[in-house]
Amino acid sequence: MLTMQEALTRLTAYWTQQGCLLVQPMNTEVGAGTLNPATFLRVLGPEPWRVVYPEPSVRPDDSRYGENPNRLQTHTQLQVILKPDPGNPQELYLGSLSALGIDVAAHDVRFVEDNWASPALGAWGLGWEVWLDGLEITQFTYFQQAGGLNLDPVSVEITYGIERIIMALQDKQHFKEIEYAPGVSYGEVFGQSEYEMSRYYLDDADIDANRRLLELYAGEAQRMIDAGLPVPAHAYVLKCSQAFNVLDARGAVSTADRAREFARMRRLAGEVAKLWVARRGELEHPLGTTPALAPARPAAATRTGDRPRTLVFEVGTEELPPAELRGAREQLRRLLTEGLAGTRLEHGEIRVFGTPRRLIAVVPAVAAREDDHVRTVRGPKAQAAYAADGTPTRALEGFLRGQGATLGDARVEEFNGVPHVVVDQHEAGGAAPQVLAAVLAKVTGGLRAARNMRWNDPKLAFSRPIRWLTALWGDDVVPVTVSTLAAGRQTRLLRTAVPPVAEIASAETFLETLGVNGIVADHEDRRELIVIGAQDLVYPDGRVDVAGEAALIDQITDLVEQPLPLLGTFDEGYLTLPDAVLTTVMRKHQRYLPVRDEDGALLPMFVTVANGPVDVELVRAGNEAVLRARYEDARFFYRADLDTPLSRMRARLARLTFTDRLGSMAERADRIGALARRLAERLGLGSAALDRAAELVKFDLGAQLVTEMTSLAGVMARDYALHAGESRAVAEAVFEAELPRHTGDALPRTIPGALLSLADRLDLVTGLAATVGLPTGSSDPFAVRRAVLGLLAVHRGTPEFASLSLTEALAWAAAAQPVPVSGAVLAAVGDFLARRLEQTLTEEGHPVDRVRAVLPHFARPSVADNLLSQLAAAVGDADFAAVAAAIQRARRIVPDGTPASYDVGALKEPAELALHEAVTAVRADLGPGGFADLRHFVDATGRLVVPVDTFFDDVLVMAQDPAIRAARLGLLATVRDLGEGLLDWPQLRI
Amino acid sequence: MLTMQEALTRLTAYWTQQGCLLVQPMNTEVGAGTLNPATFLRVLGPEPWRVVYPEPSVRPDDSRYGENPNRLQTHTQLQVILKPDPGNPQELYLGSLSALGIDVAAHDVRFVEDNWASPALGAWGLGWEVWLDGLEITQFTYFQQAGGLNLDPVSVEITYGIERIIMALQDKQHFKEIEYAPGVSYGEVFGQSEYEMSRYYLDDADIDANRRLLELYAGEAQRMIDAGLPVPAHAYVLKCSQAFNVLDARGAVSTADRAREFARMRRLAGEVAKLWVARRGELEHPLGTTPALAPARPAAATRTGDRPRTLVFEVGTEELPPAELRGAREQLRRLLTEGLAGTRLEHGEIRVFGTPRRLIAVVPAVAAREDDHVRTVRGPKAQAAYAADGTPTRALEGFLRGQGATLGDARVEEFNGVPHVVVDQHEAGGAAPQVLAAVLAKVTGGLRAARNMRWNDPKLAFSRPIRWLTALWGDDVVPVTVSTLAAGRQTRLLRTAVPPVAEIASAETFLETLGVNGIVADHEDRRELIVIGAQDLVYPDGRVDVAGEAALIDQITDLVEQPLPLLGTFDEGYLTLPDAVLTTVMRKHQRYLPVRDEDGALLPMFVTVANGPVDVELVRAGNEAVLRARYEDARFFYRADLDTPLSRMRARLARLTFTDRLGSMAERADRIGALARRLAERLGLGSAALDRAAELVKFDLGAQLVTEMTSLAGVMARDYALHAGESRAVAEAVFEAELPRHTGDALPRTIPGALLSLADRLDLVTGLAATVGLPTGSSDPFAVRRAVLGLLAVHRGTPEFASLSLTEALAWAAAAQPVPVSGAVLAAVGDFLARRLEQTLTEEGHPVDRVRAVLPHFARPSVADNLLSQLAAAVGDADFAAVAAAIQRARRIVPDGTPASYDVGALKEPAELALHEAVTAVRADLGPGGFADLRHFVDATGRLVVPVDTFFDDVLVMAQDPAIRAARLGLLATVRDLGEGLLDWPQLRI
Repeated sequence: MLTMQEALTRLTAYWTQQGCLLVQPMNTEVGAGTLNPATFLRVLGPEPWRVVYPEPSVRPDDSRYGENPNRLQTHTQLQVILKPDPGNPQELYLGSLSALGIDVAAHDVRFVEDNWASPALGAWGLGWEVWLDGLEITQFTYFQQAGGLNLDPVSVEITYGIERIIMALQDKQHFKEIEYAPGVSYGEVFGQSEYEMSRYYLDDADIDANRRLLELYAGEAQRMIDAGLPVPAHAYVLKCSQAFNVLDARGAVSTADRAREFARMRRLAGEVAKLWVARRGELEHPLGTTPALAPARPAAATRTGDRPRTLVFEVGTEELPPAELRGAREQLRRLLTEGLAGTRLEHGEIRVFGTPRRLIAVVPAVAAREDDHVRTVRGPKAQAAYAADGTPTRALEGFLRGQGATLGDARVEEFNGVPHVVVDQHEAGGAAPQVLAAVLAKVTGGLRAARNMRWNDPKLAFSRPIRWLTALWGDDVVPVTVSTLAAGRQTRLLRTAVPPVAEIASAETFLETLGVNGIVADHEDRRELIVIGAQDLVYPDGRVDVAGEAALIDQITDLVEQPLPLLGTFDEGYLTLPDAVLTTVMRKHQRYLPVRDEDGALLPMFVTVANGPVDVELVRAGNEAVLRARYEDARFFYRADLDTPLSRMRARLARLTFTDRLGSMAERADRIGALARRLAERLGLGSAALDRAAELVKFDLGAQLVTEMTSLAGVMARDYALHAGESRAVAEAVFEAELPRHTGDALPRTIPGALLSLADRLDLVTGLAATVGLPTGSSDPFAVRRAVLGLLAVHRGTPEFASLSLTEALAWAAAAQPVPVSGAVLAAVGDFLARRLEQTLTEEGHPVDRVRAVLPHFARPSVADNLLSQLAAAVGDADFAAVAAAIQRARRIVPDGTPASYDVGALKEPAELALHEAVTAVRADLGPGGFADLRHFVDATGRLVVPVDTFFDDVLVMAQDPAIRAARLGLLATVRDLGEGLLDWPQLRI
Repeated sequence: MLTMQEALTRLTAYWTQQGCLLVQPMNTEVGAGTLNPATFLRVLGPEPWRVVYPEPSVRPDDSRYGENPNRLQTHTQLQVILKPDPGNPQELYLGSLSALGIDVAAHDVRFVEDNWASPALGAWGLGWEVWLDGLEITQFTYFQQAGGLNLDPVSVEITYGIERIIMALQDKQHFKEIEYAPGVSYGEVFGQSEYEMSRYYLDDADIDANRRLLELYAGEAQRMIDAGLPVPAHAYVLKCSQAFNVLDARGAVSTADRAREFARMRRLAGEVAKLWVARRGELEHPLGTTPALAPARPAAATRTGDRPRTLVFEVGTEELPPAELRGAREQLRRLLTEGLAGTRLEHGEIRVFGTPRRLIAVVPAVAAREDDHVRTVRGPKAQAAYAADGTPTRALEGFLRGQGATLGDARVEEFNGVPHVVVDQHEAGGAAPQVLAAVLAKVTGGLRAARNMRWNDPKLAFSRPIRWLTALWGDDVVPVTVSTLAAGRQTRLLRTAVPPVAEIASAETFLETLGVNGIVADHEDRRELIVIGAQDLVYPDGRVDVAGEAALIDQITDLVEQPLPLLGTFDEGYLTLPDAVLTTVMRKHQRYLPVRDEDGALLPMFVTVANGPVDVELVRAGNEAVLRARYEDARFFYRADLDTPLSRMRARLARLTFTDRLGSMAERADRIGALARRLAERLGLGSAALDRAAELVKFDLGAQLVTEMTSLAGVMARDYALHAGESRAVAEAVFEAELPRHTGDALPRTIPGALLSLADRLDLVTGLAATVGLPTGSSDPFAVRRAVLGLLAVHRGTPEFASLSLTEALAWAAAAQPVPVSGAVLAAVGDFLARRLEQTLTEEGHPVDRVRAVLPHFARPSVADNLLSQLAAAVGDADFAAVAAAIQRARRIVPDGTPASYDVGALKEPAELALHEAVTAVRADLGPGGFADLRHFVDATGRLVVPVDTFFDDVLVMAQDPAIRAARLGLLATVRDLGEGLLDWPQLRI
């Protein structure tokens, strides 16, 4: 059996053979090997660097007293840095697995998108998790930035999770059972330390002492930066990070603390990075600098046939993220279409395909040559081209010389009516390979993803490295070169194929060659293989919800080139875990398809899709072990939670800080409960269920399972509440308090749930507005926007809330905050709500003018909804149009500030009096303010249409007599104000 | 070329093959691998443990900005722990050198005594530095105690200094040139860090911040101890240690700080150790417990001859310290003499020999058997043995049964006149092998050194492990067993011999067999080989000062078994370094013999003595490289010092704390200078040289070379002063200020030097007495005793100081202290001086009664000296005896407190009057008090002898008449007091 220490030895030996230096772990606690200066500092600047080292990585937050089988406060990373990217880092990596004795052809080894960013280090990179039969064993990242600096050259970072790998290789269920050395288990060696350090991090570390350590460390870091010493400064940044992590594990970090500390660490790390780069420059780069790769030379020209032939163009990449693949295919189609349109090559319809490792365009019937072509080149105006005596001027002579033409070639043509000298240039059409080469080079260089990276190529940028190009027109290589890449006729197959490359005889045989080698280029074909395969596997016992899992299936489809669905099973015992737990793990963590019976109940099985011809039993067993470990993990937490009284979980919220100024999560939950009950009282919606749910709300944030899988908040609250014997109404309410969790999520269906949901969001928005401020720009760390959208959605979705003014509710929420919330802040919050409502309603398809017209009702969004539908109905209505026109007409003529009152005695004209009577009747009909019924308003004001029209026809409003004029304006102002408070009439474009 | 990373890989591979776990370095800064919990905690308790790990070891004090070729603030240790001692750890270690490709037979590999203690960890062990051709490459220690706990089993700790080893193997002159990995130098990888961390430790670390860190760490350590968590507690103890080391490197640690922090760390480490042991017990020792080795079985009995034969007994050890070897030989002689005396074996004269690896006793003509022997055994009293009827009582029957005797064997014999029944037991004499076996077992078990250790043997204890016993009587093995050891006929040769063991045919051939195999058992033989060999090597150019280097030669003699003197040379350029620097390095650090020319000037060569048949050229080259590195080091500092103005060095003293309450070394030097000048003024000894020397005194403590080699303090002051153009008198004075540096050292010969020396010691003693107190017991961290002895020696050695009262001088010194020095303290200091003077004078051979008699003059020790020599001269003198007797006689009869005055008129008797006249004349002759001249006193008082005698003969002192009695007593009191202040007469036993 490969012991853990032997595995470390083999990996370090392998990488030193690849030219890596072997160095030691950092001698201060770090959370990951990335923090070691051998990575963080060395990836900066132009010096080449290859290094391998183990790094005991301390994650206080992962402390589990050694009880959790898969979670350790200190785990062992093996870290490799290859700088510059050697061009084949994935292949080198696979070699390292072989060095460990892993048969990479038998196992399902996958590169699954996983991008890495460390806000505290100002660092990020793109790459993958490497999965071994579904188990994440390595993080593989192309470092793009560190300390806020762009990296040039880019480094490849490979981080192995050694305990994980060894547990899999040794088939152990608990890290303590790992055979660390011959006859000595991991638990025997590290068990006590794991327990004790967990105690320190979770229970016993002194918060005040660690806060003071953090400050002292930050102080020394800054001093060393000021002294121009990046190395000690960096060590102190690391110490900051550890002190922060300790505080975090102790629950002593509020969201605001976190943001502040991350900002400080990012700033310090950035200064360290800058200093390091400067110092290495002063030292004239002791390790030398990295030469750029030379541009590629094109493939040799070949004899070209005359028949139209198929063009195939393959852009070979490292594993593209599924989310990028569809866009990349379409981009390829667009770029190629545009490119070909710029030529004069006849061609058939462009088809594009994509797998994680290739983008393919196939164009049938591409002509062998462009047609020959005459191009007319415009020269000087005729007037300036010939002297009075008809001899050519210098201008003409120059033009002709430039065109390689003679005076005899010149003729005159009009442009916009002005005669110019022109010459015709006869241009031979280009041969397809040459023409295509230019097109394909531009296509390749133009590819961009949503998020792009750089690798060892000095010029290209894409979602993942482009490693090869295959370009054939018929039998001929299209001699494309792009930066360091030159196209050929070779394509790469699965990495485990023997040999892993294939020569393509002709473009026409390309897809067939791929297919023969198992690679299914077409997304739909792969999808079908997966769906049918999965259905076959589970038949007749179960079914896969193909429609319900469509997004997941699409994702899986773009994770493989040669899909091989496999059925795995798990112990039925795990079915006692909540459905949401089981499926969240399957979908989100493992990309497994859940299997259900006819009644929709989960079966103890799953479908996973391997890539290529693996050893099915081996891969099945591996995936089952991974799922078992994850379920074991979940069960561990679930049971612990079930053993915990709800009140104890609720009490744990006191240890979770919400923000430093807004108190703990417990205090926040208290506020939510109280506010929900106050709202209920106001609306006459109180109930025993609400009272109880208000006591419990958010208690599951104190549950271990929710701490692990935050997306289960609310779901687990309901589950635990039911298990604890709470009524279904209470359980539903604590679940619904979390709704909606995202755009499009369900809304609360019960009144207690809706009240709690509303209260939650009211509390969040007012508290944060008064402390950290409302979000601006793209930064919204507390997801205030989402909360406001939820707030509006819940209000709109609950008819019982129609009479509730959100302005009033916000004021109540504000009064309960532990900080003063000024009127100005409340006003800003109101405005923020109004803007979000405007946005929502507009996105729902309402014309923006109508939305703006109803926006004064933002505090009661259901009123706005109602008005909008009435508006929609009213828009075609002649009465409404007339009323609106009348009101607008009155508005336009009456100066701002004119009061809606007048001396009736001053009215003499019949039209005046008629309008007066009509207005008086309408006002009586409308009754006192506070209405919000457009239909009623139109009905009531309909009678005004004629009198208004008559008034304007007959009466000169601006009479000479001031008294008369005032009365007439007052009368019109009264008309104007009839609709006041109903709509923001000026916004309305009718 | 073996790269550094390859060396680490090979060593770890070798030790994992020996069953060691491979673990990671500690993830907090440590000064040595010993501090890693894989050593510090794991050596505790009964669990077996074998481990290997690299440990980047941080020593802030060793920071040199990367400029020093051999000194790094972070060097790489490779640490190995073998628990329990496997019995052959040295051989395993040598195997590891072979694994590195070192030919241990060609090189001179030596185990040179080096004991290890960490006061801060409450840890110590005995062992060696391992030298490779004179270069210390490894620390090899048998751990005896950690955290104040005795270790059982004992662990073997092997610590490789990797950079050192690699520099030697790669023949590099500077650590930066080490080939760390193929094509990559150490400097390229670590150079910048070495510089920057040096900057931090030496210049830039914030003292206040590090003080606060230290307190926070200590607080967390204590809290974790209180929480019962040794692992995090230990981590915080390590952090304390690092913070302390940073403060120390920044010059911010006073001697008192150091003592206090060490005490705190020792206490914390002790509590951590206790907790760890307790916790491992609670966990039921996850790694099991170490079984004790089984007792040995004796060698099979062999046929025994009848002739007397030689006994040879060899106790085979690991390398004994030279200082222990002589004592061990003598102890073997004594124990064997006593042991044989307890037998009835005839034997010849015992001879003993010793080498570092064996103690040998040879006894010729040991009889084959003891003589037979009759032993009379006493039984019950005859009275109780027989009943009235003569039949034996039960008592008698029991006795006979016990003796295996019959009634017929009983006879009666008297003991103290009481008849008892006795029986004779005829005892056959034991055969030599059996008798000797018992004796030798007791001898072996009885061996003890000045400092003893334990190893894997459960019962033995000695200076170093005893690994084998060879015991032969003639041809026969003496079947000795001692604990786990059984003697045989095999001895071990040099470890590099092939084979490394030899069978001994008979005791008579033992020494010859050793000799044939190159081992010279006899110290004198070895010494002669060394002396003659060395003289041959240097002839005719140079000479070795055999007499002057006698102690060193003796030491070298006991460092080897087969001496092979080798001549090495060094670059003449180094001869520009001061003689003391060169020879200190040679003698103290390398045990090389300096070579001088006829005029005593050093030649650029040295003699080293290898052990056994090494590759001479290789070993010579290795030793030369070591010396070169050391000289390079010294030259580096020397040049830096020469480039530094004296005033700047002197100014650096402000950064060296003397003690927290007594200020910096600069303040102390100021006080010394001022006091010396005040003393000079008092004695009329002032000079310009003194004034200048007083400004400079101790300046060389600010010199880098002295910081490195503290024993050169004073010597370098003289050198640097002369180089700086100071006068010879000034230079000599600053040198002599440090004299005497140890017992037997030279004393100042110039007045300025003597004044400064005296002032130095006066300042030290008074300041410390007033702050930390005078030393008691064996603890004297500030070497106050040595200072006082020096004080007395200088005073006694300087005739010009005769009139100076040390009491007065101490009072001046006290007045200059930055703390108040009370009268009581000064009195205590005086008493302390008196006691030291008493001790010194007694050790010089003066009878203790005389010493005590002159002790009242301790404040002017030259007076005491003078009196002592007069006393010595006077002792045989009849006059003095008579005078002394007279005075004593008077003293004895006169009650204490009787005043020395009387009414002359009351004296009537002639004897009274004669004595009165004589006393009066003597008093006139002696003059007023303050004399200290015994000869004059005796001369003057001689005339009293007769009158006193007559007085006592004729006069009844205790007359009836009170007036007469008072007058007579007053007269005698006057006699008594004549010698008052001269001697403490009651102490004198004449």
